[in-house]
Amino acid sequence: MPSYNAPVKDQMFVLNDLLKVAEQDIPGYDDLDRETLEAILDEAGKVARDVLAPLNAVGDQQGCVLENGVVRTPDGFKAAFDQVRQGGWTALDCDPEYGGQGLPYVVATAVGEQFSAANMAFNMYQGLTHGAYSAIHAHGSDAQKATYLPKMVTCEWTGTMNLTEPHCGTDLGLMRTKAEPQDDGSYKITGQKIFISAGDHDMSENVIHLVLAKIPGGPDGIKGVSLFIVPKFLVNEDGTVGERNGVSVGNLEDKMGIHGNSTCVMNYDEATGYLIGTEHKGMRAMFTMMNEARVGVGLQGYAQSEVAYQNALAYAKDRLQGRSVTGVENPDGPADPLIVHPDIRRSLLDQKSFNEGARAFTLWGAQMIDRAHRNNDAAALGLISLMTPVVKGFLTDRGFDMCIQAQQVYGGHGYIEEWGMSQFARDARIAMIYEGANGVQALDLVGRKLAQDGGKHVMAFFSMVTEFIKETKGRSETFDADFREPLKAASKDLQAAGMFFMNNGMKAPNAALSGSYDFMHLFGHVCLGLMWARMAIAAEDRLAAGDSDAAFLNAKIATGRYYMARQLPMTATHLKRIESGADPVMSLDAEHF
Amino acid sequence: MPSYNAPVKDQMFVLNDLLKVAEQDIPGYDDLDRETLEAILDEAGKVARDVLAPLNAVGDQQGCVLENGVVRTPDGFKAAFDQVRQGGWTALDCDPEYGGQGLPYVVATAVGEQFSAANMAFNMYQGLTHGAYSAIHAHGSDAQKATYLPKMVTCEWTGTMNLTEPHCGTDLGLMRTKAEPQDDGSYKITGQKIFISAGDHDMSENVIHLVLAKIPGGPDGIKGVSLFIVPKFLVNEDGTVGERNGVSVGNLEDKMGIHGNSTCVMNYDEATGYLIGTEHKGMRAMFTMMNEARVGVGLQGYAQSEVAYQNALAYAKDRLQGRSVTGVENPDGPADPLIVHPDIRRSLLDQKSFNEGARAFTLWGAQMIDRAHRNNDAAALGLISLMTPVVKGFLTDRGFDMCIQAQQVYGGHGYIEEWGMSQFARDARIAMIYEGANGVQALDLVGRKLAQDGGKHVMAFFSMVTEFIKETKGRSETFDADFREPLKAASKDLQAAGMFFMNNGMKAPNAALSGSYDFMHLFGHVCLGLMWARMAIAAEDRLAAGDSDAAFLNAKIATGRYYMARQLPMTATHLKRIESGADPVMSLDAEHF
Repeated sequence: MPSYNAPVKDQMFVLNDLLKVAEQDIPGYDDLDRETLEAILDEAGKVARDVLAPLNAVGDQQGCVLENGVVRTPDGFKAAFDQVRQGGWTALDCDPEYGGQGLPYVVATAVGEQFSAANMAFNMYQGLTHGAYSAIHAHGSDAQKATYLPKMVTCEWTGTMNLTEPHCGTDLGLMRTKAEPQDDGSYKITGQKIFISAGDHDMSENVIHLVLAKIPGGPDGIKGVSLFIVPKFLVNEDGTVGERNGVSVGNLEDKMGIHGNSTCVMNYDEATGYLIGTEHKGMRAMFTMMNEARVGVGLQGYAQSEVAYQNALAYAKDRLQGRSVTGVENPDGPADPLIVHPDIRRSLLDQKSFNEGARAFTLWGAQMIDRAHRNNDAAALGLISLMTPVVKGFLTDRGFDMCIQAQQVYGGHGYIEEWGMSQFARDARIAMIYEGANGVQALDLVGRKLAQDGGKHVMAFFSMVTEFIKETKGRSETFDADFREPLKAASKDLQAAGMFFMNNGMKAPNAALSGSYDFMHLFGHVCLGLMWARMAIAAEDRLAAGDSDAAFLNAKIATGRYYMARQLPMTATHLKRIESGADPVMSLDAEHF
Repeated sequence: MPSYNAPVKDQMFVLNDLLKVAEQDIPGYDDLDRETLEAILDEAGKVARDVLAPLNAVGDQQGCVLENGVVRTPDGFKAAFDQVRQGGWTALDCDPEYGGQGLPYVVATAVGEQFSAANMAFNMYQGLTHGAYSAIHAHGSDAQKATYLPKMVTCEWTGTMNLTEPHCGTDLGLMRTKAEPQDDGSYKITGQKIFISAGDHDMSENVIHLVLAKIPGGPDGIKGVSLFIVPKFLVNEDGTVGERNGVSVGNLEDKMGIHGNSTCVMNYDEATGYLIGTEHKGMRAMFTMMNEARVGVGLQGYAQSEVAYQNALAYAKDRLQGRSVTGVENPDGPADPLIVHPDIRRSLLDQKSFNEGARAFTLWGAQMIDRAHRNNDAAALGLISLMTPVVKGFLTDRGFDMCIQAQQVYGGHGYIEEWGMSQFARDARIAMIYEGANGVQALDLVGRKLAQDGGKHVMAFFSMVTEFIKETKGRSETFDADFREPLKAASKDLQAAGMFFMNNGMKAPNAALSGSYDFMHLFGHVCLGLMWARMAIAAEDRLAAGDSDAAFLNAKIATGRYYMARQLPMTATHLKRIESGADPVMSLDAEHF
């Protein structure tokens, strides 16, 4: 049975030494001193380890069950959900006006990593609620906010997002769900939505569905889509839960993973809905929370990789098999532990260097979201909008790969469900798909984000890297060889790819889009390379100041060196693929595949 | 529900146009004329499509069940097994002396691809039997062969391979299962074996277990291991099935995939066993069939990728979502099919170019096995021994990746079990683990095979590639640019990596082993690049001869061009990682991970 221990020290290193959160000029950040932060993360870590992680396998084995139209969650989920709610963990970064704690998003993100690593399926009930909360908070009327938000902050009522229909996933313009205006200002919602995570369950008093639908007579396609609040139970004037609305669970999906989360087919049959914001502007309302939601999914990718790594590491230290090629290391045992073998270390370091780099990248992104929201900083908003598909696509792809590698360390035991490694891989798999499949993320990056605001944001990113490379020149011979030069080479690849798109994008869009997936990964590697170079400096600085935790800091530097030497070189291959252009991809007729 | 159609035309292209089987000077190959081969593959294809594929999801959903000590297979498995046996499909390449058809291994391999793609879990019952048959055939006494082989050729009796124990997987020297000599020349076998595929089931009259065990007083470690025949039911003098032996199923494993195959914990409690070959030479007996067994697992990797691709392709042509970026292609529909989108084509071509390259590589390997066995060709045996870890490791890693990509084409539906794409990925996952985990394959390649016979075989491979590059110089401008130059660059990377190991292997074995996994993949890419360059020539030659099937042949060339442009460049990154040496991998102390 796998276990999980929150990597608080590593998280603190990122927040404190890399991002220096307490020193940022972002409202609310001045409260994030070392002690406060550490206390929050330690407490959250206990919940993750002692409450959520033990239910992870239970959720996988039992799954959710649809009984008489109502979804029953696995044993222990409701009690744990109550504990999480009562501990205030659902309210961390919510608006104090509605009962939230008003902490920065970066703190909620760090806690989210822990909860998601401990039990991804479980944490989604809260995650979806937070997404729905954000949409209502940003676009709802004062009355809607007053009615729904206080209950959603505490997760007494949970939320869902209803976009997909059987015939339309990415292409939401094909949507058929209808919203017919009523005399009282409400709408009657009719249609079927699928893949609705946390669509129904027995852990909250009400479920607040946010539903995209079309008001008849509106513009065609995606421009005619509006967003509605459709509660499972209508809410009485006094705020209590009233009669059942015309929404029901049509089916519960049998999925590859995240069995503990109820993925529902939702049927709306003249259900009463309330418009959020303006008619036909539903997509805009969705987009405002998309950066957050997608960063949250990227986080799931590396959170699963982190917990898988922790267990693979423990196994590699414990399992005795074979002898070190350079001489016996465990003379008293019948064999040496797996970790003496170079290829096992290679695999563990792939995982470790990815997890720590991904954590830095994600928390850096979360800090930019805070800066965008709390400082109204348009440059930060532009930059995080650019990076969002990279966080989502790159971290979930690589996070899944790392779960597969962690599973592989277990040999045959990795394939046996009892050992738990299969679940990490199966759960992580969904993160590559939902909230926009990763191919769509790549399309968003190359087709929209690169050129956004005249390419300003990608130029800002390039400058940031170039500036860093300039600034760190002559820092030390080892830093130069181990970090600065590899980063320079990788960023040159990235800029060459950007140039290729610039020169081809307009006249040959297929040439750009044929390389979109590789560009997303190339970009991701450069981001992690930049994070590692910065973390190496943070560690070096602490070492130079005589810090007593030399082992930890030297391990950081060694892990970073591994990433730069063994992962970052992927940028050259990605560039080569991109530069091969459209021809290899487009020349074969569809009928000859 | 997914479907499968045997790619007979593609298989024929490899056998006929690439390998030119009928022209080889290998005993038995002169019968492999086009018509005969095509007839066999067409008939096998019908069994695969109509009998095995429809049971694939059934096997996954029902799994095997242990009832009163006996394993019950999923509904329909027994009837299908009878049909396969009665059709003679289990006897294809078996020795006519024992009822086999005596066809070359290359034919059995092509049929094996089809059966494995259609239903991997099902085909393993036959596959394991074939492995046990081969061991008895190579090392058993005449009496043992006469007793067991005729029944195993028809799969009236099936076979298993018992190596792993709870505390020993790769490191078989730690084995504890005991074999105590009896006065009658038999042995009493006592111990526990785990992960025994097809360990018990209800489809055959008897199960013939091949069991590795230690005879007390023999040499320590791996050198004291012997191989035994341990039948589930003892065999009477007259060849009929007699009394129950002391072997029982301790448990049935709950696995990530291949649910239709019974993976058993087998308990041996003073079971009667019969020594195969010589005492303490059990590993040698195992090794003689290892090339075949591992090539068979490599085949499973691309077979799952092939069937996953077929279904992803159908979905990509059928599912309407979004519009082509260069203009509407399906004006009468609400949207264009997925296949218009460059990134979907990129994914499909990754899969297609891998599958077809892998098929060529595997059948080429099978032909070498025939040459080694039927011509007693030591050079062929040396070459296939060198390539075996590449076939096994590279094709199962990449095959799994391609299953994941195929699943991704389905978007959210790919994650829902009902659509079947999850099963392909879950089933393919085991091939990276069993029959020697892929890290062990890489170790075998770099630690043993490279230096075998003074490095003769790897030099032979290098010469073969160099010779090919020399021979094809000036063939045509397009061949040169699209195939020859990329192959030349990749083979230069491979030779540089080989040189790095040569220079470092002896004095710094960790430096070589730190790059072993990358070397296995580098090698695999060069092999597939070589196959594609050869297939392009075969297609060009047929086109030049005025062949009427121009669309098929041009598609081959286009698919090959894709591989050379977009997959082969990985060799540069693999080389870079290898050349980074041991330091990034070995410098971190185990306690600081």
